[in-house]
Amino acid sequence: MPMEPSLSVVTLGVAHFGRSLDFYKKGLGWPTKATKRNNIAFFRLNGTVLALYNKDSLAEDVGVSPKGSGFPGITLAHNVRSEKEVDTLLSKVPRLGGKVVKKAQKASWGGYSGYFSDPDGHLWEVVYNPFWKLDRKGSIVLP
Amino acid sequence: MPMEPSLSVVTLGVAHFGRSLDFYKKGLGWPTKATKRNNIAFFRLNGTVLALYNKDSLAEDVGVSPKGSGFPGITLAHNVRSEKEVDTLLSKVPRLGGKVVKKAQKASWGGYSGYFSDPDGHLWEVVYNPFWKLDRKGSIVLP
Repeated sequence: MPMEPSLSVVTLGVAHFGRSLDFYKKGLGWPTKATKRNNIAFFRLNGTVLALYNKDSLAEDVGVSPKGSGFPGITLAHNVRSEKEVDTLLSKVPRLGGKVVKKAQKASWGGYSGYFSDPDGHLWEVVYNPFWKLDRKGSIVLP
Repeated sequence: MPMEPSLSVVTLGVAHFGRSLDFYKKGLGWPTKATKRNNIAFFRLNGTVLALYNKDSLAEDVGVSPKGSGFPGITLAHNVRSEKEVDTLLSKVPRLGGKVVKKAQKASWGGYSGYFSDPDGHLWEVVYNPFWKLDRKGSIVLP
């Protein structure tokens, strides 16, 4: 195997670091040591680390133009344990600084899901999949 | 805490499912049950699941236009345990169907990293961070 199957970090490029830090740290309540004076934040999730970093700086690090628009072609999903949890979470999002992009609804594949976007438009699906179990940390146990 | 700190799935929108499946399954060697006849692939990583799905269908699921171009504002990172591992992995990428976007080099923050893109341009950083340890599954142990 040329590359171990691991995803260490997902970095979200952000336009206003403080605003995004507020959304994830105060809004969603995710633990991090980062403060507004830092220019990068790390959140330890279930195996993967989520990072927030200035979008222009991120593009500079890659060595590409920071210009980009429209659908980014990547979505993040947060699986929960019931349809009710999907509803509850999405109902809280607007007052946390996020935006509901798609109201929760039954999906053709048998699940129940909706989408919200964070302050920079990064897309999070909140989803209940009755065919997938979650372990204690919230990680999916694939059938 | 309104939302548990977990990232269940990262879905990469792809233009040609078979090509992307080949890259991740045959190229990188990541285990999955998916075949070219499926239209979605799941790879169990270290806690998070990576999914491949047609980009237009993914946008349709969100309910947004599939149009988008330029820097997506999201990068994925694969941390390894030495500078040599970064070099070795990046040297293999071209013949697996990926493209080296940034050659491995010392970073100002003290690490060593480079970037490659998958067949759809999704950006993976391959990085050695001497300040972060990895557990057995390859997950970062934040200091």
